[in-house]
Amino acid sequence: MASTSPGYGITIRVDGAVSSQPVAQITQTILAMGASITALDVVESVLDRVVIDVTCDAIDASHAEQITDAISKNPNLNVRKVSDRTFLLHLGGKIEVTSKVPLKTRDDLSRAYTPGVARISQAIAKDEKDLRRLTIKRNTVAVVTDGSAVLGLGNIGPGAALPVMEGKAALFKRFADVDAWPVCLDTQDVDEIVRTVQIIAPVYGGINLEDISAPRCFEIEARLRDLLDIPVFHDDQHGTAIVVLAALTNALTLVKKNLADTKIVLSGVGAAGTAVARLLVAKGAKNIIGFDKDGLVFKDKGDKDPMRRWFVENCSPGDFSGTLSQAMKDCDIFIGVSAPNVLTEADIKSMAKDAIVFALANPDPEIDPVIARKYAAVVATGRSDQPNQINNVLVFPGIFRGLLDGNITKITDDMLIRAADAIASCVSADQLNANFIVPSVFDLNVVQKVAAAVKKNS
Amino acid sequence: MASTSPGYGITIRVDGAVSSQPVAQITQTILAMGASITALDVVESVLDRVVIDVTCDAIDASHAEQITDAISKNPNLNVRKVSDRTFLLHLGGKIEVTSKVPLKTRDDLSRAYTPGVARISQAIAKDEKDLRRLTIKRNTVAVVTDGSAVLGLGNIGPGAALPVMEGKAALFKRFADVDAWPVCLDTQDVDEIVRTVQIIAPVYGGINLEDISAPRCFEIEARLRDLLDIPVFHDDQHGTAIVVLAALTNALTLVKKNLADTKIVLSGVGAAGTAVARLLVAKGAKNIIGFDKDGLVFKDKGDKDPMRRWFVENCSPGDFSGTLSQAMKDCDIFIGVSAPNVLTEADIKSMAKDAIVFALANPDPEIDPVIARKYAAVVATGRSDQPNQINNVLVFPGIFRGLLDGNITKITDDMLIRAADAIASCVSADQLNANFIVPSVFDLNVVQKVAAAVKKNS
Repeated sequence: MASTSPGYGITIRVDGAVSSQPVAQITQTILAMGASITALDVVESVLDRVVIDVTCDAIDASHAEQITDAISKNPNLNVRKVSDRTFLLHLGGKIEVTSKVPLKTRDDLSRAYTPGVARISQAIAKDEKDLRRLTIKRNTVAVVTDGSAVLGLGNIGPGAALPVMEGKAALFKRFADVDAWPVCLDTQDVDEIVRTVQIIAPVYGGINLEDISAPRCFEIEARLRDLLDIPVFHDDQHGTAIVVLAALTNALTLVKKNLADTKIVLSGVGAAGTAVARLLVAKGAKNIIGFDKDGLVFKDKGDKDPMRRWFVENCSPGDFSGTLSQAMKDCDIFIGVSAPNVLTEADIKSMAKDAIVFALANPDPEIDPVIARKYAAVVATGRSDQPNQINNVLVFPGIFRGLLDGNITKITDDMLIRAADAIASCVSADQLNANFIVPSVFDLNVVQKVAAAVKKNS
Repeated sequence: MASTSPGYGITIRVDGAVSSQPVAQITQTILAMGASITALDVVESVLDRVVIDVTCDAIDASHAEQITDAISKNPNLNVRKVSDRTFLLHLGGKIEVTSKVPLKTRDDLSRAYTPGVARISQAIAKDEKDLRRLTIKRNTVAVVTDGSAVLGLGNIGPGAALPVMEGKAALFKRFADVDAWPVCLDTQDVDEIVRTVQIIAPVYGGINLEDISAPRCFEIEARLRDLLDIPVFHDDQHGTAIVVLAALTNALTLVKKNLADTKIVLSGVGAAGTAVARLLVAKGAKNIIGFDKDGLVFKDKGDKDPMRRWFVENCSPGDFSGTLSQAMKDCDIFIGVSAPNVLTEADIKSMAKDAIVFALANPDPEIDPVIARKYAAVVATGRSDQPNQINNVLVFPGIFRGLLDGNITKITDDMLIRAADAIASCVSADQLNANFIVPSVFDLNVVQKVAAAVKKNS
């Protein structure tokens, strides 16, 4: 499973005597460490010494350090500097606020600022509908987090969450021309989060909740949906659910099974897991057995976690009682949004014929996809270095493009299902195969089709 | 005083028979109405008719309507469409959020988003200093308003204030490459405003308070300065005070008077007025007599308005008691941040020799500057169509450029005075004259000099 990633790319500046063949020595050392070289430039050559910039992708941060150490230990090579390409990219942040209007002359200032702008303000004060017409509101989304459940890193707080929210904002612009702004809240109190988002809402045409831990995220979303006249979408829940449903739709077509007839095992019954279950049930699934880190999910925790209660009431395992391994026997679909390596090879082997395995824990899946593929008909992960990447980037840009363009205030399950169908439809019948059940994130049709599906009357 | 402004520019599309000489008729009508024609294009000529786009600047919105009416009434002319250039400019808002990093390939995504971004988040979680280094924080300012005192329009609310905050953000980028974001709060409760700004602060390197009514703005600023580790600057107060001090410094040089020896009359003792007085006193002024709409300011209002109390205690009129007109007699400097036409020609005439008049009420000053100039040595206004425009745009971009670059957390009076001196210094001795006491807003030296002055050790 260990493969290199450009997310762990480093550039090492090394010098050495020409006579000692430094290029060959560097290359050999890096390749021997299992890293992939992506660029090598001789940047300077003075007398008998050369300076070389070599760029390579490592597996992870400690692997990158091991590579640097190995080169340093070579007496013929002198490491001058190691640049981490990911850190270099992040210096000063990833987004900026730019003007869409010219500000070159006094006349420009008179129109964009005082005195001209006063008339725009007056128009909005007179008719609130002009707020969407004459300001950024109609194209602007707040990406709101409290930093309590950031990627796989957990509760690292609002500041440490900011690079992720910036990245999301950059993706929003790149894929859907949506202007998104990071809102990182220095509180984890549900009441304060709800009230703060309500107070800052006038600027925004939509709210994307992000990386807020369960079960708090459910209450925050529900209360904001009640309070606001703009759509509220928790991407970790619904984004994941939509792309899972899209991928599953195509996978089921491939293995010629009906969702309603399948036995489904779900590992992870948090924000993403319950949202996936809800959407599958809405689409007709009848048999979902859930597990979390304490085993089978068969009891709720009262009002504290309404989604878990929903899960227990609607996906209860009937007369099943047992372990994850026992549930996997004859199961048609495994969906993991949980933790690395909770499944064994034997678990996969015990599944029904033409099994579907979505092992989405990131960066390390519930089962090594290479092993899963030995038995299952279709395997998908969250990884970018494997086929069938289940990636929310397929979802949120198009969802918000549609919500904003349609001036839609409420999100319905029906809308989410239409979005999933739109993504699934981007893989045509002749393209569909076990290694291509979802379109590429760079497929420009996706945003348009999802946006159109969202806008369509429900 | 009534002069045309591009803030009230309209484009009228008209057609007429060639035989009736439509261009001449349109031109005559518009000029007769006192508007200035800025462009005229014949966009189409079919058989015996021509279609003409004529663009002109009106005095205000009703004047623009009168012009359109006058053209409509001409039986030879047919008005097809009237476009308001200021409204056209504002469609969809004036700012956008763009990506600074490439997002073309999967490798780009791996660095800017998952998995690479996780390492950036981890670095910040480990060492908070990396937040400024690896995110937008170090270059980003929140432009915060509650919409309670927007331009001269009053309490029009957060939505109607948004076009102004967008304009400010656009100016921040244009003049100082600062990324500024509008934060329009849907509350006017002081406690909620303070708490909300504190909660959203992690993303920002500075807070620019804007268009919040006095005396609430004083408490909000003071409490936020206590709570936050980033600088908080209420532009309506300090921006105005700095540019007034800068202009006054140069005006006094011109008339060869010392600030300490002058008699000053201040009309308007709100947010801007008290801040002006504070800075003048800090710079050595000893005799400031204040007036508001109720007359002489000689009593405070208790804790509700600490700045007014400060004013009464520090600028009290001594044994003076009387009207604004009486105070103007033998006064050296008049500073108005109040309301149109509170002064008469006789008031100006009664001032001391080489008087200085800053009539800054916008858009209509405390006295027509044309009349003031008959008696005063130096006259300044807030208008862009008059010499000596006292404009905060000279201040806030450089202030925040300096605060951000210097990683400065607290703003001092000394810093404000240095900023004023920096602006004053942009007018060289040989440039200085009664019609040029402040640099142009397009003078690129201003931002750099102000920023350098702010960064200088206090």
